[in-house]
Amino acid sequence: MITKINNLTNSLTLKRLGIDTLQEFVVYMRAECHVCISEGFKTQTRINISVKNKTAIATLNVIYGEILHHGEASLSESVWKYMNAEEGDEIIFSHLQPIHSLSDVRAKMYGGILDYKAAERIISDIAEGKYSNIHLAAFVTACAGERLNVNEITALTTSMVNVGSKLNWDSSVVADKHCVGGLPGNRTTPIVVAIAAAAGLTIPKTSSKAITSPAGTADTMAVFTEVDLSLAKIKEVIEKEQACIAWGGGVKLSPVDDVLIRIGKALDVDSEGQMIASVLSKKVAAGSTHVIIDIPVGATAKVRTLEKALKLKYYFYSVGNSLGLKLKVVITDGNQPVGRGVGPALEAMDVLSVLRNEPQAPKDLLQRACFIAGALLELCGNAQAGKGEQIAMEIVKTGKAWNKFYSICMAQGGFREPKYAPFSHVILAECDGVVSEIDNRKLAMAAKLCGAPDDKSAGILFNAPLEKTVNKGDTLFTIYADSKGELNYAIEYIKNESKIITIK
Amino acid sequence: MITKINNLTNSLTLKRLGIDTLQEFVVYMRAECHVCISEGFKTQTRINISVKNKTAIATLNVIYGEILHHGEASLSESVWKYMNAEEGDEIIFSHLQPIHSLSDVRAKMYGGILDYKAAERIISDIAEGKYSNIHLAAFVTACAGERLNVNEITALTTSMVNVGSKLNWDSSVVADKHCVGGLPGNRTTPIVVAIAAAAGLTIPKTSSKAITSPAGTADTMAVFTEVDLSLAKIKEVIEKEQACIAWGGGVKLSPVDDVLIRIGKALDVDSEGQMIASVLSKKVAAGSTHVIIDIPVGATAKVRTLEKALKLKYYFYSVGNSLGLKLKVVITDGNQPVGRGVGPALEAMDVLSVLRNEPQAPKDLLQRACFIAGALLELCGNAQAGKGEQIAMEIVKTGKAWNKFYSICMAQGGFREPKYAPFSHVILAECDGVVSEIDNRKLAMAAKLCGAPDDKSAGILFNAPLEKTVNKGDTLFTIYADSKGELNYAIEYIKNESKIITIK
Repeated sequence: MITKINNLTNSLTLKRLGIDTLQEFVVYMRAECHVCISEGFKTQTRINISVKNKTAIATLNVIYGEILHHGEASLSESVWKYMNAEEGDEIIFSHLQPIHSLSDVRAKMYGGILDYKAAERIISDIAEGKYSNIHLAAFVTACAGERLNVNEITALTTSMVNVGSKLNWDSSVVADKHCVGGLPGNRTTPIVVAIAAAAGLTIPKTSSKAITSPAGTADTMAVFTEVDLSLAKIKEVIEKEQACIAWGGGVKLSPVDDVLIRIGKALDVDSEGQMIASVLSKKVAAGSTHVIIDIPVGATAKVRTLEKALKLKYYFYSVGNSLGLKLKVVITDGNQPVGRGVGPALEAMDVLSVLRNEPQAPKDLLQRACFIAGALLELCGNAQAGKGEQIAMEIVKTGKAWNKFYSICMAQGGFREPKYAPFSHVILAECDGVVSEIDNRKLAMAAKLCGAPDDKSAGILFNAPLEKTVNKGDTLFTIYADSKGELNYAIEYIKNESKIITIK
Repeated sequence: MITKINNLTNSLTLKRLGIDTLQEFVVYMRAECHVCISEGFKTQTRINISVKNKTAIATLNVIYGEILHHGEASLSESVWKYMNAEEGDEIIFSHLQPIHSLSDVRAKMYGGILDYKAAERIISDIAEGKYSNIHLAAFVTACAGERLNVNEITALTTSMVNVGSKLNWDSSVVADKHCVGGLPGNRTTPIVVAIAAAAGLTIPKTSSKAITSPAGTADTMAVFTEVDLSLAKIKEVIEKEQACIAWGGGVKLSPVDDVLIRIGKALDVDSEGQMIASVLSKKVAAGSTHVIIDIPVGATAKVRTLEKALKLKYYFYSVGNSLGLKLKVVITDGNQPVGRGVGPALEAMDVLSVLRNEPQAPKDLLQRACFIAGALLELCGNAQAGKGEQIAMEIVKTGKAWNKFYSICMAQGGFREPKYAPFSHVILAECDGVVSEIDNRKLAMAAKLCGAPDDKSAGILFNAPLEKTVNKGDTLFTIYADSKGELNYAIEYIKNESKIITIK
């Protein structure tokens, strides 16, 4: 124990163990190391760490084995990267100061009001990584169950914007669209952006990669061109084409949003307040002024009832107005996949055939995209009320949308044609009848088992929309995979799940 | 990727890495291992694991380095021990089934009522380790903020009892006492048990070790004798002496309680409902029938106002009655430490000098113990109303309490005298005046920095009670430590903290 006196500096040397704990920052130390003993650190203690003048907070996991030697410490991968750490770096430890904003969380737990000051304290502490999963879950829970009113959601949204980057554009009208999500193949965004930009709107679109779905807009766009653009590159593309379709993760808009989404998913809680704040904080941070929100409603979509959709609509309008956004909410049919493809490349093919006016282009995708683009043109004053959809359709039919889309891709880094995966298997109807029900969730799961979104060409080509009459032996859908193993894995799942497509 | 087809069994070989994550069960696998790829497991996925027919649920951390080789997996220490795993064991993986009780948690989040069925589903899933920290924090938060009514607390308590062991005793009156806690040196339990047993009561006392305080009753008792007793041994001791003072952790009473306490501590939330359920579930599980609850009230104690104490009292009575407990709540002074010692051995010395009627025995500890023992004797019908305290005092004065205490220790495994630690340092008054305020929390922190409770003899000998007149240079307290390093560490802290003891 006397060693302690000789070791008054609380520092150790970093060794990389390569342990991935996702966003949670974890620090590893030997149980008997002088820092643990002298500071009284134990497993789960949250500790201030500092490497090369960069600081963070991490949770301690104590090591009893020989994977760390005397005088060594390690960091989980996320914090290793965050600190730009290198093997051999000195890491310095100190006690965590109390997290004062936790008393704001407790106040909300006890039925208090989340005012702007409290929201700001909480959100900036979360942004600095001070909250553990336990703290985050408490905050999400305290705000769930419709416990946030419009003022509180506005406070939350504003403070979420303020902790991230904020983009500024020269144009006084900056268009945007957002889909609340949950519908496989619903890839309207590339088409809407192309139409809007061709009509003269500025539309710097940032999109997400899939987290639990078989493809996000950023995954589909990555089939065509580069999407991981720096802020400087985005500005260059906008300067040239007035539009881009980039991955939002590269520009750190509303960084706390991703953290809260992860907790919400683990709890399977769709807190209205949090969803509104999530969507609108990203729009405001992106510098958008005019936004269309698409809410698909269906039994296996994210929003399951019209009642719920109308409530969300009310919140979007109220909070959006407080934030100075011009906003229109459209409620759309969410009962079945849109287009034919589910998976990045297969959805890219749908987008391409619509933009190129090919005869086999999926009509539902074309109509949906023109409906949304039309609403956006009207909202921005680029089309008379009731004329937007027709104008959008003309922009597609005349090839202007395709030209614009191609130019955007070229500005982002080039254009690639989507390709089919090498292995495929056809799923056939087992009886005659009419398609009466489609389970969007199970269809998405099958596409993911094929390898989507990581394998860009993997997924499902869907051929059995609702109310279609099919005969035994007709193709319901085709699955595509990069390896025979993944193909078999998906076939196995489809065989075991009886109600992916119901034929009556 | 084709390897997957040759690896249809989802199994790997266990290697011990020695990573301690506390109660959280973590499984480690290489990112590119066939199990991760074929099952789609990613970091933070919760997975069913099975080793030698024992199963559990663990959270995945993916490894990118070489600390695991191809075909190997590892487990964090808690789950390694839980599974009785050995190096080289086969570990089998499968997807987690949905945790249905999470919908009960969500219902509570959304303002629903936690009925008995729901409480039972939640508590048994927690007992089986199915909840992650995020799920646990959501449950604790959903129940905090006074959102549990008496019926819900009763449901929670009952289901917490039902998932653990339950003790049964031959006697129809089984006495017990509990202190809500937070007061350094408040070690009445050994004295109360000795008095009650000497008066003929059956009192099988199970106590806790310190989690955040410098000593728990089990830590102090461990100075005298063995406390880590099996259920069989406890029964043997009770048969002989009608009483024991054992560590409760060895007999798994209300195991979910420890889990919820850990989350409550991380959130610094003292949810009333959870505290009532915590205390009463352990009493019912221990087979107690007559219980005294001691609530010390003071500015730096756990319960800070009389109003809060009275509300707790109401809940204890209501829920206790529903569970068939005879219960009396006493509200006591919580403004300063009790006795002189703070730390296991120093508190043990106080207990001993009270039981042995030594002239220097701390009067406040004697009086407090007799007050509680007297209330217990009255509650159990062993003393007339108003006579209990006097009877208790006589049992101490005649040496019967000491004889009983010594016999209990001998039955538990022998009797040891407490000893002072080798290093000490005296803290002196820096001015003349009267002691006007004592910060219990800072005093406890100083005792912990000395090494308590792990170093049994470490801690504080306190000599400056409220309203005592002191002169500059008088001893306020003495600190004791096993090493000079720890002593210096505590001195440093005391020097930097100005208001541990306020003299006016």
